[in-house]
Amino acid sequence: MISQGYDHVLASSGQQKIEWVRRSMPILASIEARLTSSTTIKGRRVGICLVLEPKTANLVLALRNAGSDVSVWAPADCVQTDVVHALRAEGIQVFADEQATDAQDMELARAFLETRPHILVDDGARIIRLAHREFPELVKNMMGAAEETTSGVRPLRAMFNAGELRIPVINVNDSRLKYLFDNVYGTGQSCVMAMLDVTNLQLAGRHVLVIGYGWVGSGVARHASALGAKVIVAELDPVKCLQALHDGHKVCSIMEAASSTEVVFASTGIEGALSAAHLEAMNDQVVLCTAGGGNYELPMAFLRGLGRSKAVRNHVVEYTLPSGKRVLLIADGHCVNCSAGEGNPIEVMDLSLSLQACAIEELALNGSNMAAGIHPISDTIENAIATTRLAASGASSEPMTPQLTQAMTQW
Amino acid sequence: MISQGYDHVLASSGQQKIEWVRRSMPILASIEARLTSSTTIKGRRVGICLVLEPKTANLVLALRNAGSDVSVWAPADCVQTDVVHALRAEGIQVFADEQATDAQDMELARAFLETRPHILVDDGARIIRLAHREFPELVKNMMGAAEETTSGVRPLRAMFNAGELRIPVINVNDSRLKYLFDNVYGTGQSCVMAMLDVTNLQLAGRHVLVIGYGWVGSGVARHASALGAKVIVAELDPVKCLQALHDGHKVCSIMEAASSTEVVFASTGIEGALSAAHLEAMNDQVVLCTAGGGNYELPMAFLRGLGRSKAVRNHVVEYTLPSGKRVLLIADGHCVNCSAGEGNPIEVMDLSLSLQACAIEELALNGSNMAAGIHPISDTIENAIATTRLAASGASSEPMTPQLTQAMTQW
Amino acid sequence: MISQGYDHVLASSGQQKIEWVRRSMPILASIEARLTSSTTIKGRRVGICLVLEPKTANLVLALRNAGSDVSVWAPADCVQTDVVHALRAEGIQVFADEQATDAQDMELARAFLETRPHILVDDGARIIRLAHREFPELVKNMMGAAEETTSGVRPLRAMFNAGELRIPVINVNDSRLKYLFDNVYGTGQSCVMAMLDVTNLQLAGRHVLVIGYGWVGSGVARHASALGAKVIVAELDPVKCLQALHDGHKVCSIMEAASSTEVVFASTGIEGALSAAHLEAMNDQVVLCTAGGGNYELPMAFLRGLGRSKAVRNHVVEYTLPSGKRVLLIADGHCVNCSAGEGNPIEVMDLSLSLQACAIEELALNGSNMAAGIHPISDTIENAIATTRLAASGASSEPMTPQLTQAMTQW
Amino acid sequence: MISQGYDHVLASSGQQKIEWVRRSMPILASIEARLTSSTTIKGRRVGICLVLEPKTANLVLALRNAGSDVSVWAPADCVQTDVVHALRAEGIQVFADEQATDAQDMELARAFLETRPHILVDDGARIIRLAHREFPELVKNMMGAAEETTSGVRPLRAMFNAGELRIPVINVNDSRLKYLFDNVYGTGQSCVMAMLDVTNLQLAGRHVLVIGYGWVGSGVARHASALGAKVIVAELDPVKCLQALHDGHKVCSIMEAASSTEVVFASTGIEGALSAAHLEAMNDQVVLCTAGGGNYELPMAFLRGLGRSKAVRNHVVEYTLPSGKRVLLIADGHCVNCSAGEGNPIEVMDLSLSLQACAIEELALNGSNMAAGIHPISDTIENAIATTRLAASGASSEPMTPQLTQAMTQW
Repeated sequence: MISQGYDHVLASSGQQKIEWVRRSMPILASIEARLTSSTTIKGRRVGICLVLEPKTANLVLALRNAGSDVSVWAPADCVQTDVVHALRAEGIQVFADEQATDAQDMELARAFLETRPHILVDDGARIIRLAHREFPELVKNMMGAAEETTSGVRPLRAMFNAGELRIPVINVNDSRLKYLFDNVYGTGQSCVMAMLDVTNLQLAGRHVLVIGYGWVGSGVARHASALGAKVIVAELDPVKCLQALHDGHKVCSIMEAASSTEVVFASTGIEGALSAAHLEAMNDQVVLCTAGGGNYELPMAFLRGLGRSKAVRNHVVEYTLPSGKRVLLIADGHCVNCSAGEGNPIEVMDLSLSLQACAIEELALNGSNMAAGIHPISDTIENAIATTRLAASGASSEPMTPQLTQAMTQW
Repeated sequence: MISQGYDHVLASSGQQKIEWVRRSMPILASIEARLTSSTTIKGRRVGICLVLEPKTANLVLALRNAGSDVSVWAPADCVQTDVVHALRAEGIQVFADEQATDAQDMELARAFLETRPHILVDDGARIIRLAHREFPELVKNMMGAAEETTSGVRPLRAMFNAGELRIPVINVNDSRLKYLFDNVYGTGQSCVMAMLDVTNLQLAGRHVLVIGYGWVGSGVARHASALGAKVIVAELDPVKCLQALHDGHKVCSIMEAASSTEVVFASTGIEGALSAAHLEAMNDQVVLCTAGGGNYELPMAFLRGLGRSKAVRNHVVEYTLPSGKRVLLIADGHCVNCSAGEGNPIEVMDLSLSLQACAIEELALNGSNMAAGIHPISDTIENAIATTRLAASGASSEPMTPQLTQAMTQW
Repeated sequence: MISQGYDHVLASSGQQKIEWVRRSMPILASIEARLTSSTTIKGRRVGICLVLEPKTANLVLALRNAGSDVSVWAPADCVQTDVVHALRAEGIQVFADEQATDAQDMELARAFLETRPHILVDDGARIIRLAHREFPELVKNMMGAAEETTSGVRPLRAMFNAGELRIPVINVNDSRLKYLFDNVYGTGQSCVMAMLDVTNLQLAGRHVLVIGYGWVGSGVARHASALGAKVIVAELDPVKCLQALHDGHKVCSIMEAASSTEVVFASTGIEGALSAAHLEAMNDQVVLCTAGGGNYELPMAFLRGLGRSKAVRNHVVEYTLPSGKRVLLIADGHCVNCSAGEGNPIEVMDLSLSLQACAIEELALNGSNMAAGIHPISDTIENAIATTRLAASGASSEPMTPQLTQAMTQW
Repeated sequence: MISQGYDHVLASSGQQKIEWVRRSMPILASIEARLTSSTTIKGRRVGICLVLEPKTANLVLALRNAGSDVSVWAPADCVQTDVVHALRAEGIQVFADEQATDAQDMELARAFLETRPHILVDDGARIIRLAHREFPELVKNMMGAAEETTSGVRPLRAMFNAGELRIPVINVNDSRLKYLFDNVYGTGQSCVMAMLDVTNLQLAGRHVLVIGYGWVGSGVARHASALGAKVIVAELDPVKCLQALHDGHKVCSIMEAASSTEVVFASTGIEGALSAAHLEAMNDQVVLCTAGGGNYELPMAFLRGLGRSKAVRNHVVEYTLPSGKRVLLIADGHCVNCSAGEGNPIEVMDLSLSLQACAIEELALNGSNMAAGIHPISDTIENAIATTRLAASGASSEPMTPQLTQAMTQW
């Protein structure tokens, strides 16, 4: 059993961080107030498997304050140790260790699942898949889960199509309030900034290859371009390619782009999106990172097998290829904004984590009646959250009138 | 019966325009070649009800060249007379008159429907609705229709929900290849440019109110902002409001925006979106136009009833309100890019009209087996068109590999 | 002697245009009021040699209203005939003919100089140079001149360096209020828009070559890029090249750019900037125009000598090169915004023409005491004009305080 | 005497950082090679007073490698301790201490001047002014100095106008290669990023007040706007105000902006630009930082005198005003990119520090013959540096030809 003790100094540091983010998360505060004044999640066991940083901790505490029994898991590359201690100081069980190996992360995940959560919030569907593979009894009794990212929705759809998904999963990722904001503005901005922060380089005048032009990729491209980069997009879907072309980017295959590429953002969420052959074709000193997904998109086995690597700066390891060309890998290929930065901006996580809180509320209320499968967030939830956020920014929507309602429904 | 005679000088002018656009419509040329080498639309009666300008004429001629019997209708504010003559010189029946009143336009539409088209291509669902109201026998025998715009899809959905839609309609508007390009880049860019062209004003430093933040409105806002305007967005949907906020625009109600507004673009497609009270609250000399929809969005009856108007420039009429403040109405409130400009850019119409050509092909092949209702364009058609367009721009998508296919489908 | 008669219908059309622009020229109106209430320019003969369109006409009338005796010259490609008639209807002598040949334009210029202006406002220094070559007695008695453009300041500096400039010339072009607004936002925006308007093409996804990255070229590049173009810059000055690189553009020689270029804007003001060899290296159907300067930048003798040209659209002539490749020349190579559009936006010309009015005022007051040479516009004039313009836009500068004054002048 | 001993671990950390920046500073490397192969600066005592971080350290080592005797001073808020140790490990005398008080910084500066530099490189003209006040004999024997920033050029001009500047100063700041790149892209980008990095907030949807619209302010505004902020500009100069208006920003006084301001960047370089009254008028929790200048722009005495402050996050102190409203001060009001980030991007400092290296070379060659006063960097130096930088980016300028030279010099 993992110790849930904590260090006071670390806990204090984590608490300061959590207090800071609370200032800019008014939507979650309003949902916390609503849940606290009801019994909806009281006594429910909720398992949170998200990037473990102060914004997530704020969700965890909100759920705890509303009476649920929360436990937390996160893989090593997504853990801020002082936040772990701050949560433990609040009595939350946290199954996470910044120093864990991949195997240890899996052991922590199993220990976490032993807490027998009624409701899971997952990122990448890692724990949902683990539960289906190894904890069939737990799955049978769960009220459901919510999934945070594109990379997780894809395998969940594959599970559903194969008839193997046993619980209702609320697809938070495909809420407009998630992908239009978290993926484009949040991950897009913070990954570009984290890469610049780690390297102290500039983008103006550089060629940046963005692999994958989904919401994250288009956000990365938009922000890189806004900072003066010449963006090249490689994407499988020809319609998205055309969109990239209209957004002013060059569009071609990775191989065609390789000789002019100076910085790479992999934002596909697809295993093996970038191959060793791609790397060999690129320039010396290419800067390589992932945005949104993880290092499974990169040829990590190839790089690690080279036997020629050295740390050249905090978060930067230089690998020397057989050709003598060097690859500068950022944050070990993990998602750069979380592993080498503070993750998404606070306001954007207030949207995403509020969606998660509402998904938990929905599962607690109706999960037992929902079919196994993938369910959308309702328009009602989206509209309520968006309206709260607008008000917090001093903005508002145009008021609906009976005349407009009629004009929009008649023919 | 409307005369189908033509004037040689006008026809020659129209032909020159059509030849010009053919240079930049390679996708439609490739579809024309495919249809011509098959019998798919041979002998089919096709009715085209789109903005009648050279790009549409190129579609009409492509369908004719492939063996179909094409006739054309368009309302007065969407007609270029020399293009009418050029089509008639080619033997196409055209039911359109730049000088027609609204009532005469309806008579022309009825005459057009008397040609008994098997397949209709509509814009705003005006003719589909007319046919359902007045030509039930025709509707019974039609293979189907295709719809071009958001403003048309909305009433079609209302018809369908009311159980009153009798034919399959292919929803071209909601193809990503349509709304991501035609609406955002095409209509967005060309409406902003047409307004500037008509007025010779600049946007830098001005407050521009965009009503409606759908695809067209967001395109108008993007282009106005790129030209230096401070954009204010009024929108009913709070999620779209939030998107506008993140795109850097001010977001509030029309009434709150009124006192700082200098230019208005209505892009809602909703009748009565802008009221007389809104106009009264605005600045003296506000410039007023619509983008994407039509003057039904504006309080035209109020303006016309004022009895105080004068033409102050080509395409600009000044109305004086009871308060003494003046409204500068562009293009009589009709969609500004078509009525006071050349409509969308050629390349973007190559996409949209190629979708229409593929929709006609699909209806000719399968329309008889399709249920009454609203049907999407297939991914296969979208991908084929996008790939042709990419190649025409010297771009290409990332090639799919067996490994990637496997990575995307397993869990 | 050229007839100064006029046609009532044309004059009326021109008058309507002038009235329209007066609505948006508040700065010039305030200067007109000041000059009218003084005797500064009363009875002075002022010669205006600017693009002859409604905004210029408004300056001409303002000067006439303030008591000066104004005459006007403009070359054929810069003449709007109805504006000529409107000015003549007001009793202004206009030496301009939209149909004139180059030789006839020179004869008109000589007739114009026979009116013996005390003060000249020139564009490109054409008339100042003509006066120095052929009218030495006139030059001896002139109070001075003002010059509008970069293309004119360059030869004036050469004249001054050669000891051959005999009058004081106020360099309006190098006022920040001119080049930061007229050249960047005015000419930049209006040339890109005029090219799109003439061709009905779009820029999204296209490669646009901008030759010359001065104020006009950077404005063209900024607007083309904002509309989705991939901009390539060719520029002699390596520092400006670096600026273009940081603005996100590709930077290389014309020859290196040729094979990917689809649209060319020449914005150098330098004779022969684009050669026949450059054209031969470009793609079939390249679109060619100038922004800011004139067709002397292009290999016009080569194109005209080909013997293979045809008009393919209003303002577009197609030339076929020996290789078979075609060049689409816009507006006969003249500055595209003036020759195929309405010139700069009204607001921007309110700034530039107000500077001209102040330069005339300054020459009338002090010209006799100013040394032959090139003189800047004073900060006082610039600040007064800028402050008027800010107020007209509802904006204002931060008020100066004694503390700030002291902080800025002490060490 | 300050100890010049060093810690091996810290020195090693600093060395790694210096090695990293060397990878992206090819221009300085080429100048180092030229200086090393000559005797120009051999044996010269050079004093460097710039932000003490790895890029500056690379300049210091380059000068040392070329044979000069370099010493370094920097104020506490501009010191990276590991870089200090790395330089001392190389035998460089460094007069800087991250923990120093203001008074101790002055003592360090005096000790630094006791090294009797022939040539000074200064930032803010602090040391040039100190030398003029307290070290008149040193000043008498100096070859000259170079100044890095706008904030320093202003007092130098005041000194010159008062007849009190005794040495030639090369004005590096007003080189186009400096202000167009370092100030706009370097400081502009890195200050916006450092503020976001410190706070983990986002700019999309927020109102950002930029005080001062010089090169730094316009760069901050451009980058904030690119990240979705609504920018408000307060500026004394009406022409710059007009430029801000055309760039799409709102322009008004600080007081008018106060009630909507959420984030402030002071970028004036002027003492007292922001007053206590301004702060009282702003929103609760306004985020306050400086870009380019320093905390003398802010009402630090007022804030410190409040007696109500607490650290709420790394680099963030919250001050509570008498009204109860809170101010979140970043980096103690010091220039945010240097004090809470890594300063400018490496590439941009390669330009600026290469200019400094060339200024030192120029002073070593000709300083004794240069008049006391402010001297520009020569075009030859600028062009050489720009050309090297273009080549490093795979770009190039258009080649000059005899025909173009003739076209540009004749009239």
